[in-house]
Amino acid sequence: MKHVNVGLIGFGTVGAGVVECIQKNGALIGERAGITPVVARIADLDITSDRGVTVPKDVLTTDASSVIEADDIDVVVELVGGTTIAKDFILQALHRGKPVVTANKALLAEHGREIFAAAESSLADVYYEASVAGGIPIIKAMREGLVANRIQEIVGILNGTCNYILTTMEREEAGFDEVLSAAQAAGYAEADPGLDVDGIDAAHKTTILASLAYGEWFGMEPLYVEGIRAVTLQDIKYAADLGYKIKLLGIIRQEEANVQMRVHPALVSTNSLMGHVSHVFNAVWVKGDTVGSTMYYGRGAGREATASAVVADIVDVGLNLKFGSHRRVPAFQEHNGYARMTPMDATESRYYMRFQVANQPGVLATISGILAESDISIASVTQHEADQATVPLVILTYKAIEGNMQAALSRFRKLPMVVDEPVLIRIEDLD
Amino acid sequence: MKHVNVGLIGFGTVGAGVVECIQKNGALIGERAGITPVVARIADLDITSDRGVTVPKDVLTTDASSVIEADDIDVVVELVGGTTIAKDFILQALHRGKPVVTANKALLAEHGREIFAAAESSLADVYYEASVAGGIPIIKAMREGLVANRIQEIVGILNGTCNYILTTMEREEAGFDEVLSAAQAAGYAEADPGLDVDGIDAAHKTTILASLAYGEWFGMEPLYVEGIRAVTLQDIKYAADLGYKIKLLGIIRQEEANVQMRVHPALVSTNSLMGHVSHVFNAVWVKGDTVGSTMYYGRGAGREATASAVVADIVDVGLNLKFGSHRRVPAFQEHNGYARMTPMDATESRYYMRFQVANQPGVLATISGILAESDISIASVTQHEADQATVPLVILTYKAIEGNMQAALSRFRKLPMVVDEPVLIRIEDLD
Repeated sequence: MKHVNVGLIGFGTVGAGVVECIQKNGALIGERAGITPVVARIADLDITSDRGVTVPKDVLTTDASSVIEADDIDVVVELVGGTTIAKDFILQALHRGKPVVTANKALLAEHGREIFAAAESSLADVYYEASVAGGIPIIKAMREGLVANRIQEIVGILNGTCNYILTTMEREEAGFDEVLSAAQAAGYAEADPGLDVDGIDAAHKTTILASLAYGEWFGMEPLYVEGIRAVTLQDIKYAADLGYKIKLLGIIRQEEANVQMRVHPALVSTNSLMGHVSHVFNAVWVKGDTVGSTMYYGRGAGREATASAVVADIVDVGLNLKFGSHRRVPAFQEHNGYARMTPMDATESRYYMRFQVANQPGVLATISGILAESDISIASVTQHEADQATVPLVILTYKAIEGNMQAALSRFRKLPMVVDEPVLIRIEDLD
Repeated sequence: MKHVNVGLIGFGTVGAGVVECIQKNGALIGERAGITPVVARIADLDITSDRGVTVPKDVLTTDASSVIEADDIDVVVELVGGTTIAKDFILQALHRGKPVVTANKALLAEHGREIFAAAESSLADVYYEASVAGGIPIIKAMREGLVANRIQEIVGILNGTCNYILTTMEREEAGFDEVLSAAQAAGYAEADPGLDVDGIDAAHKTTILASLAYGEWFGMEPLYVEGIRAVTLQDIKYAADLGYKIKLLGIIRQEEANVQMRVHPALVSTNSLMGHVSHVFNAVWVKGDTVGSTMYYGRGAGREATASAVVADIVDVGLNLKFGSHRRVPAFQEHNGYARMTPMDATESRYYMRFQVANQPGVLATISGILAESDISIASVTQHEADQATVPLVILTYKAIEGNMQAALSRFRKLPMVVDEPVLIRIEDLD
């Protein structure tokens, strides 16, 4: 085998990027890998719009099934997205024994078990490097490069849109809504931004990474998810004064064989590597018991970066076809990596809290008293002088148990002296 | 195949780490990968010293050849180091058609062509993930994860000892000699530190990365190499004042099909990711035409991190044995990635210069005049007030041509007003 015939389903941004990458670098890839990817067929409902790449007319079709069923197609690349027809296409390909490359994190996070079972029964490959952190080869690192490690911790900035919004709020001193609107206008955020700003997309990626680390396809159910809509410029500024940036993190951590998984905004030190991951960039921090701390950084989305990962997967599939080594590295391999899921209430964090409180005696005594009763130690308190009737009070805590903190929070909400909803953001210290 | 029988040649720090990793995580690796590494034989001249791991007596031998020749050994892991007997062992294994895993950067950098030719003629695998940047899976990223990319730039902090020394000089405000002695006492630096502090080890790794990127096994000859012995605490402090850290970098850059390769200390922005790579950590910045900027970070040396990479290679070899997919990813694949090497004199950099100059009129006029005549623009000048007869003068330049800068430097050396040898450190801006 010298050529891999690629059948592309979905000719959107990433699809066009894949075509462009293969057109530009196909010959070089052939020299390096011994197999050259060729875009043999492209299916999309819209085959007339200009995608900025030139393809022969007879390559294009509106009939995805015909591409999947074609005998001369070696690998089906699903770039439709979503969890409905994309799933049908992938299952159709796998039932035919045809290898699949996909960038579809939502589909894998929600229906991975079904897809991997289909792949197993037909002994077909499924590769999905582009599903997590775009162009960063993190799936390959997790499944192959770090195979000798028990994974102790994964912390990722996994959603470029959120990181762009948070970075821009800080740099331009603008509020969330304003930056989101600008991001939508500039094409950095979807018209319906919920998947990104509510943390769902980061959660999809987090559960995929956790599944690879611990050998059970978790799905979305065990995940605690909080997005960035509640992050204010005020908190970004206060965090900066205290030496922190606010990032949306996917956090996976193993403690005594139990695993916790969560997605939420968090304060990370301005002086940490994570604190320097800005704009649309992604980064994944992986700590293994043998390798120690590692980090992987790059563009988490976009036409070209995603194409880089998709084409690398096509090459892996092509090499497996050439060598008859299908499922050399299976799409997903169950293994016994953990005992049980740690409930969110049992996790431990340090916390940043901001209260808008009445400017009157006894406020700090009351709040610090509730914290003490909840077994939460205060690390620092900042209350600026003010003439107003209410003032902001910022408290950082030492490590405390989430359940205790939530109980304290319920009590704070009932205090007449606490004017607005108290703000609670966890702090992540990465060594 | 369910087990991979490993024959270990060299039972030093890394060898013991490999044994420990397999003992600790072998079962997990087996569940994940479908093959379990087993340390079947260990050869070392010293088989009596305590390595902190327990192995059955009959596994140990002083006869490396017997391990290489044993029919039940599936893969030979060379951890002897150096370029003499290690080479003999590897060639012996390859001539027997036996796959090899090695961490030996010096050997590959200097004799890679011969080793890869032997591997090609016997169709055997050679894996060497641990040879560059220790536990970071950068070889896998370069050969597989980024296969779809033309590599435009690689910049690496590739020597943990140098990074430890430079970081410690800065943090403890100590001189090079003092920190080197302490590092030697603590085991962070060798008794003969030349391989590290003179940049040779970083150069070995740089030429390996460049070879993978551009498809010619370059060897050491085209490399410009400068170590860190001349880096002073004074320059580290002045650089910090200007917003920079000093790092020993391996730099590979392609411009119009020409490639430059060099190893030298450089100023990198304190606010960059590279500026935050401290202590013994390594990082490799890789820019591809499709993926854009990526970075890989982790421990570049040490018993455990290196073992993580070696065991990952053993698994890759084992999978190839299991699937009959030898040389699925060849040890080294020639390809046509560049036109010619850019001579050092033709490279462009920004520069940091420090002069110790006579405290007299006309000094700045003379120096800036020479720079202007050499077509070098000044970006900033710092001369602190002083009562002494001589004062330090620090100049940062805009981008200039290395040959012009060296010509200017020769003229500066001849000026009576310039008291000591002028200091010249290049500045690297990574976007």
